[in-house]
Amino acid sequence: MRTAFYVSDGTALTSEAFGHAMLSLFPLKFKHRTLPFIDNQDKAQRCRHIINQAYQEDGIKPLIFHTFVNTEIKNIVTSSEGISYDFLDHFVEPMEAELGTAAQPKTNRTHGIHQDYNFRIDAVNYTLANDDGISTKDYHEADIILIGASRTGKTPTCLYLALQYGIKAANYPITEDDMANLDLTYDLKMHRHKLFGLTIDVERLQSIRQERRANSTYASLEQCQKEISKIENLYRQEAIPFLNSTHASVEELAAKIMDEACLERHRY
Amino acid sequence: MRTAFYVSDGTALTSEAFGHAMLSLFPLKFKHRTLPFIDNQDKAQRCRHIINQAYQEDGIKPLIFHTFVNTEIKNIVTSSEGISYDFLDHFVEPMEAELGTAAQPKTNRTHGIHQDYNFRIDAVNYTLANDDGISTKDYHEADIILIGASRTGKTPTCLYLALQYGIKAANYPITEDDMANLDLTYDLKMHRHKLFGLTIDVERLQSIRQERRANSTYASLEQCQKEISKIENLYRQEAIPFLNSTHASVEELAAKIMDEACLERHRY
Repeated sequence: MRTAFYVSDGTALTSEAFGHAMLSLFPLKFKHRTLPFIDNQDKAQRCRHIINQAYQEDGIKPLIFHTFVNTEIKNIVTSSEGISYDFLDHFVEPMEAELGTAAQPKTNRTHGIHQDYNFRIDAVNYTLANDDGISTKDYHEADIILIGASRTGKTPTCLYLALQYGIKAANYPITEDDMANLDLTYDLKMHRHKLFGLTIDVERLQSIRQERRANSTYASLEQCQKEISKIENLYRQEAIPFLNSTHASVEELAAKIMDEACLERHRY
Repeated sequence: MRTAFYVSDGTALTSEAFGHAMLSLFPLKFKHRTLPFIDNQDKAQRCRHIINQAYQEDGIKPLIFHTFVNTEIKNIVTSSEGISYDFLDHFVEPMEAELGTAAQPKTNRTHGIHQDYNFRIDAVNYTLANDDGISTKDYHEADIILIGASRTGKTPTCLYLALQYGIKAANYPITEDDMANLDLTYDLKMHRHKLFGLTIDVERLQSIRQERRANSTYASLEQCQKEISKIENLYRQEAIPFLNSTHASVEELAAKIMDEACLERHRY
């Protein structure tokens, strides 16, 4: 199997994003290897050696997706036996022409601490303090409040919204009590413009709950069916926008919620 | 100010990664606007309209960073007044030649649910259940255990490791008790090969704590100084690898920890 390398003088997150996007276009399997913080010539030599070794072991030239600022370091890495893809290189010149400014590359430019960094950490802290309905008194600060049955993906989605976009995302589990009279609690009603629902296919919910509490009422198909049907009715009755999380990743759920709820991305 | 658009038929996360990496090379400010899920011609027309409007308002042509699968939709968007940058396009041909296979683009290819998706959600659940020392009985399952004084960045870093890389990351706050005899607790000793320390500059720690509990002993410069100095001694005495989080983002901390602790990335 061919090896794909993601190499950078920084975190290599950009190289990974670039490489994964390219490779996902092809129906092939690769071994993946990330080599971050290659920021001096010694490390670059070692990196070159690792790439050449992969060539020997695989019997096929590795691919190298890289983003480097320092050309000497870059030249050492690209002098290896790997096939080199450098997406910055290709776009820098046309962008310089369009922007009328020379590029001024700095290491750790993309994923270093920005001005709004504290904002994201505050959002993570908010999200943890308002996870799973543990507190409802700070909903006035929330950017969004996800609601839904237990195990529909609320917590990971909220954490992703906070970490990636600096969104203060609370979440509240709708329980038997709330469903009995098919109503929203007072705290939720007071912030209904911030509510966003999650739902999930019943079979999927049952299998997730079964893993948590095998053979409980909580994990029974009947219980899951009852909850999902009542909760979806509640969403419709209250005109709460909602998404089905069954086939969506946290990235997709977060991006869809941001889009549908018109939330501003704070990261940049 | 010029507007930068990030447009895609999927989450637009790849367009954002691409565009942010490019723009971070230039010492200029932009307005940022993401338009995800542009997956039919109607939406593409609306998107084209939004881009043209930005041109009128800004008086300068917007930049469009995009990744599209469907060329008809792409053509509508790129027929706008914006300057179009398409990084997939440029690299597809050379990669097809090298791989000897035609690209088979699918929507939501990059950030959809992969086989290992549950793995990441499990890691998030593990990380939440093992945050801040609330439980130490499942450390045998941990991939890594972050330790450090209160407010050194352990929790956001653990969450990022879990969400981005599927790493089961526990964290444990070192408190006055542990420091009294400068020793690790039994649970930590049993898993010492998994320990990774965080530290932080004293002034920064004081300012973070001051925001949490103004004018408390906890937030005093003396207390912060004492804790950090004792904890760094502990790291050295026990040969625990550690990083200073003062000037590092969660992305950088996570990537450095992965690298130094030789953790495998589970995402791909």
